[in-house]
Order: sequence, then structure tokens, then C-alpha cells
Amino acid sequence: MNKEIRVAVTGAAGQIGYALLFRIASGEMFGLSKKVHLQLLELEPSLGRLQGVKMELEDCAFPLLSSITITSDLNVAFRDVDWALLVGSVPRKAGMERGDLLKINGGIFTEQGKAINQNASKDCKVLVVGNPCNTNALIAKSHAPNIAPENFFAMTMLDQNRSLAQIALKAKVGISAVKNVAIWGNHSATQYPNFYQGTVNGQPIDQVCDESWLKGDFITTVQKRGAAIIEARGLSSAASAANAVIDTVKCLTTPTPTSECFSVAVCSDGSYGIPEGLIFGYPIRSDGENWKIVGGIDLNDFSKEKIKVTTDELINEKETISDLLI
Amino acid sequence: MNKEIRVAVTGAAGQIGYALLFRIASGEMFGLSKKVHLQLLELEPSLGRLQGVKMELEDCAFPLLSSITITSDLNVAFRDVDWALLVGSVPRKAGMERGDLLKINGGIFTEQGKAINQNASKDCKVLVVGNPCNTNALIAKSHAPNIAPENFFAMTMLDQNRSLAQIALKAKVGISAVKNVAIWGNHSATQYPNFYQGTVNGQPIDQVCDESWLKGDFITTVQKRGAAIIEARGLSSAASAANAVIDTVKCLTTPTPTSECFSVAVCSDGSYGIPEGLIFGYPIRSDGENWKIVGGIDLNDFSKEKIKVTTDELINEKETISDLLI
Repeated sequence: MNKEIRVAVTGAAGQIGYALLFRIASGEMFGLSKKVHLQLLELEPSLGRLQGVKMELEDCAFPLLSSITITSDLNVAFRDVDWALLVGSVPRKAGMERGDLLKINGGIFTEQGKAINQNASKDCKVLVVGNPCNTNALIAKSHAPNIAPENFFAMTMLDQNRSLAQIALKAKVGISAVKNVAIWGNHSATQYPNFYQGTVNGQPIDQVCDESWLKGDFITTVQKRGAAIIEARGLSSAASAANAVIDTVKCLTTPTPTSECFSVAVCSDGSYGIPEGLIFGYPIRSDGENWKIVGGIDLNDFSKEKIKVTTDELINEKETISDLLI
Repeated sequence: MNKEIRVAVTGAAGQIGYALLFRIASGEMFGLSKKVHLQLLELEPSLGRLQGVKMELEDCAFPLLSSITITSDLNVAFRDVDWALLVGSVPRKAGMERGDLLKINGGIFTEQGKAINQNASKDCKVLVVGNPCNTNALIAKSHAPNIAPENFFAMTMLDQNRSLAQIALKAKVGISAVKNVAIWGNHSATQYPNFYQGTVNGQPIDQVCDESWLKGDFITTVQKRGAAIIEARGLSSAASAANAVIDTVKCLTTPTPTSECFSVAVCSDGSYGIPEGLIFGYPIRSDGENWKIVGGIDLNDFSKEKIKVTTDELINEKETISDLLI
């Protein structure tokens, strides 16, 4: 395996970027034996701030950090990268329709997809964090035919971790006691944290926690957690989102423990009746190199209904930006 | 060794706190076999924001994070802690004299010292990050007679890491090639990054880099790096300061590699003619439990002169707040 890794991060001077870069550089993402080259992308007006971030990265004397490139040029940012972490996106502003949001970001991810296609390593893996991340990943994939579709991911790990945390609090157990709550579908308010396959200390969650709580307040708490953080902190989730990026990459690049799974949205192969090609959140396992969707899960009617809602939303998103797909 | 560790962090909702807490909780500070209890202190008006930070910490599903306490009560924050990381302080504002700054912070660190004395583990170690950190540590130590003087530290690691980075850039080597540039004296503009004992790939730094650069621009660049970061980023150093906190604790709690040293300010035992009891930056080695000042360094006239300036400043600071010492 290559001893050095080249990682692009977009929106690098933003809040999530700031919380993420130092943890990548310290070795938390790729381990303590791999040197890292950071290729940081920002919009031209933010390059001054990004220069400050670069100076702070230098001032950490990280032994594993081989180089730091800062640029507003997509071709420079994605050149030869092994991983593209697409963190930056345009947030929804007051009065903006969801359709507008999809199209504005669609333009950004069209260009990034093309630049990844032309510049990145052929084995490059692309993790989209910037919202709406599933459809942004779909667009980027569409414009990057040189990269295998299975190398495109959208992040649902923050939803998973929020789910584990809520269940641990409710069941009054340590967080490590809760396993296998995978996020199905879209990283949006329709996401489905499927607690029916999850466990608390090996017991099914719905035998430990009240099922009406799970079907009701649990799901809405997870769905609305982002807003609750903004309410408390005055700023949107940054460090916890960055942490989920690290977790996602680690989960994809290390073998998944026996009988466990993790959450990430991948290019659907039609599993569980989801239209092929949609970027859809599934329970996933990895052997450290390749991933697969956990098969053979018997979904009950509640789960099927929730999964239908989030699938329909993703189909609708795809239709909204269909002119951006090739 | 205890399998769990209890850590207080003050100013926990601030920028450095936000960059620090997630890395402590992930295991970067105390290793992957130690569970951590975080006891987070903030001023009453910032507890809402701190609640948001707590929620984000929960949302990371850190396996090692056993509990999170948030409080504005010093007695709660420091109860039974093994480490007190005193990050918060009042920053210098326009028109404020250095004497005013020393006295305002002196009041804070008097109270924190008393609360540590009454509540912390008897083996508690105290690392002061909030500036003016050497004299703040001196004040806290004075009010905590139950804690051994050698358990009080003030942070000079960020200055050390900035020094390593500047020399690595100048010598065009990787950062790991540069060793043993210890910061002497005060964490202030008078600090002395003693390059004469440092090496680049085993060679004395002053044989690799131009000595007039080292004596001139190198020192002023390190001294003014904080201002340069503010200029670029629009905000003061946070992630790099947090990283230096992690490095300091790791250096103190793991054996120092042979022939190496690291920078932290400790209670002077009179070494190198520094008045006993001052919190003074020295080159330090640790066996993982206890530290000692590196002895036998032959200081040249340039070094002696620089060390005299920073010593005089610390003596003057001590005189300014002498009414706060007991």
C-alpha cells in the first residue's frame, strides 16, 4: 500500500474544514504510518483566511503532514488525489426553494466532478459532505466517468452517530454498547435511522427502548438535531460533522468488525428495490478495500414505509437536476 | 495506572476549547486505552453555547468519552480531576495596560487555584494556556499548596512548534528533521527559542541555517506569529494552540525519546540562575511520570542575554501581582 496519501478538501477555510484538517494531519484519518498531502480548495475571496489555516497547520509540526497546497483552482486541488472530501457547498438561505438549492449546488458539483475526472487518481474515492450531499454526489459521479461509481459516497455518518448517542442516553448505556443503527436513504429530514436492526449490548434496540419512542421522538430528535445544535451554539455543527468525515473514511478503509455495519450513502445497485444509480444510504460493510451493502435484511412495514418516503425524495431531487446529469 | 481520567477544561466554549475537546475525546491526548471524563467550565452567559458543544461531543459517539459535565461552578469543574487545562483567560483589550491584564487574570487564577486546591485529585497536574500563562500559573500554584509545585505548567509548546516549522521551511526539510529547539522563559514577546541546542538531521541548526537569520528574523517571526495568524485568518490561533496543548500533555505523560527534549514552563528550581519558584520555560525531559530540566547546557553570551531579558520580564510580572501571592 502507498505510504503517502493525497487528499483534497473543499470549503477548507470553513467551520467543518477547520475542525477536520488538523485531525487529518495528526493521523486520525489514515493512521500513524501514512504521510498526508493536503490540497485545500477555497473560493478566491477566502484564500486569505485559508492561508491563515495553512500557517496554523505548519505551526502544529505534524510529523505526518508532507505538504499543504492552497488554491482556488479545481485542477490544482484535485490533481492526483486519492481522496476528495467535498465539504464545501452553498447553504440554504432565507427564501431559497429546495429546487434552487439543488441547482446552485448542482453547478458546483458538476464542475468538481469534471475536475476530479480529469485530475484525480483513477482510484480516487469521493466523499460528499456538502448538502444536499446525496444528489451532489450523484451529479459529481455523472461527470466523472473515469472514476468507478462505487468510489462515490455521501455522508450519513453524522446521522448514525447522533442516533447511537440518543439511544445510549435513553438506554443509559455507554455509546459503545449501541451498534448497527444504519441510516437509510437521503441525508435530509426524510432519512430513516433503522433501529430495528440495531442492538444495545447485543439485544435488539426495540426490546430495550420503548418502540413508540423509537418510532416517534427518537427519529424526529435525530432529524432535527442539526437545528438544535444551531439553537444552542449559534453556529451549525462543525466538529461533529468533521468527526463523522473521519469516521466514514476510517470505516471504509478498515475492515468492519464481525456482525457490524456502518452508514454511508453509496451508488445503489438496486438492493432493496432502490432505483439503480441513486446515491442512497445503506448499512455497509468494508474489507478495508471494497465495500458491500449488507444484504438479507428483513424490513418490516414501518421500515419499508420510511424507506419509500426517503427514496421518493431522492427520485424527486434527481428529477429536479436531471438536466445536469449526463 | 488508572483506566479512567478526569480532565477539567476552562474556557471550554471558546475557540481553543472547541478545537481541543474533540481531540481529547477521540483519545489523542491520553491514548486509546483510557476513558475520559470531561468537566467543562464556562462563564454563566456562555453555558448555552457550551451546551451546544456538549451535544456535538455526544454526536461524535466517541467510545472513550465516559461523561461530560458542563458548569460555571469552579468546585464542580475541578472535582477529582487528574488534569486541569486552564485555557480560558481575559484577553488584552485596546487601551489595557499589561499590568491591568496581569491583575484581571490574576483574580481569575487565584480563584481557580483555590478551587483546584480544594477539589482536585492530590496528584492533579495543571497546565495553564490562558495568557499571561506563566504568571497565571504562578498565581494558581500559590493558592494550591496541596498540589506539588512541580505539577504546575505553563504552555510554551506552540512557540516551540512554530520554531520547528520556521526552521524546517528555511532548511527545506520535513518537520521531523528538526529537534530540540526549546523555548526559554516567558510565553510572551521576550521568549527565547534557543536554536543553539537544536539540530536539523542531527546537525547543529546554526551550521545549517544562516546565524544572522536565526538571531534576527527567525526569532521575530516566531515571536510575531500569533499576530500574523490573526492578520490572515481574522481570528487568533485556535487549532494550533489546541494542538500544542495535546502535544504538551503527551510529552509530559510519555517518555521523551533519547537525546530529545520538549518545551514547557515549570516551577524553577534555580537551574541556570533563574529565581526559584518562577514559572519558567526550559528544555524538559519526562520519563512518563516525572519530568526534569535538561541540565548541563552551555549557554553562549547571546543566549544568556536573551534569557536575562525574559527572566527580568517574569520577575517584573511577579512584582506586579505580588499582592495576589501567598
